[in-house]
Amino acid sequence: MRRVVATGTFDILHPGHIYYLEESRKLGDELHVIVARDANVRHKPRPVIGEAQRLRVIQALKVVDHARLGDPTDMFRPIEEIDPAVITLGFNQHFSEDQLREALRERGIGAEVVRIGEYTGDSCASTRRIVDQILRTRGGS
Amino acid sequence: MRRVVATGTFDILHPGHIYYLEESRKLGDELHVIVARDANVRHKPRPVIGEAQRLRVIQALKVVDHARLGDPTDMFRPIEEIDPAVITLGFNQHFSEDQLREALRERGIGAEVVRIGEYTGDSCASTRRIVDQILRTRGGS
Repeated sequence: MRRVVATGTFDILHPGHIYYLEESRKLGDELHVIVARDANVRHKPRPVIGEAQRLRVIQALKVVDHARLGDPTDMFRPIEEIDPAVITLGFNQHFSEDQLREALRERGIGAEVVRIGEYTGDSCASTRRIVDQILRTRGGS
Repeated sequence: MRRVVATGTFDILHPGHIYYLEESRKLGDELHVIVARDANVRHKPRPVIGEAQRLRVIQALKVVDHARLGDPTDMFRPIEEIDPAVITLGFNQHFSEDQLREALRERGIGAEVVRIGEYTGDSCASTRRIVDQILRTRGGS
């Protein structure tokens, strides 16, 4: 059983997320998703949708075998528990493959790190762009 | 085979949508979803997410067996093709059960009409509330 871990905030679900998860799933037999906790999203605006609801939407996707919220204090703990062969990064996730590989090595986790490319199928494949579009089209009402 | 038809815009997917689809699915053996075309959304602001992307997200849900876009001019044509035993309405869909029953009778479609209740699990279970929250929290930036 080759387990793959994908991670993210998944604030407003869009086809870019689904592409990321589908590409991740292809790298193994079972896809485990770790959904970021509200309190741990610090490098961008706080999520619009709360963590319990973001988790529920991710669990409803065909491509997802298992999903859970991240650990409040130790991001590597769920990865140790899942023991994946591969950890994937989305195209716009803010840390580098090398940073993550180094951190995993320090924790004694042997998973491979793979960056999934950008989904180019449409113009709304990022939560930021969706939020921008809402502000642009609805902000004056 | 007892087919169920659910319909909607599904603009920004949230747990309220998933609840509506799961409850609809329980009324039969196979869930068919008809996703509203951009041009046919006239009773509320135009969707933020385009129809192809909204369809793709709905197709990615475990609970959905088949999904398609609505007919550009005749909303009953896909229903005739699917020939469902049940058609469900979401709690905030704008036409009444009786209006829909009458219109189906006129077209010779024998499906039962069932209104699915409101999902009360959280405060972001409507696209309008999500948009309002984005405008409130991000509009000043």
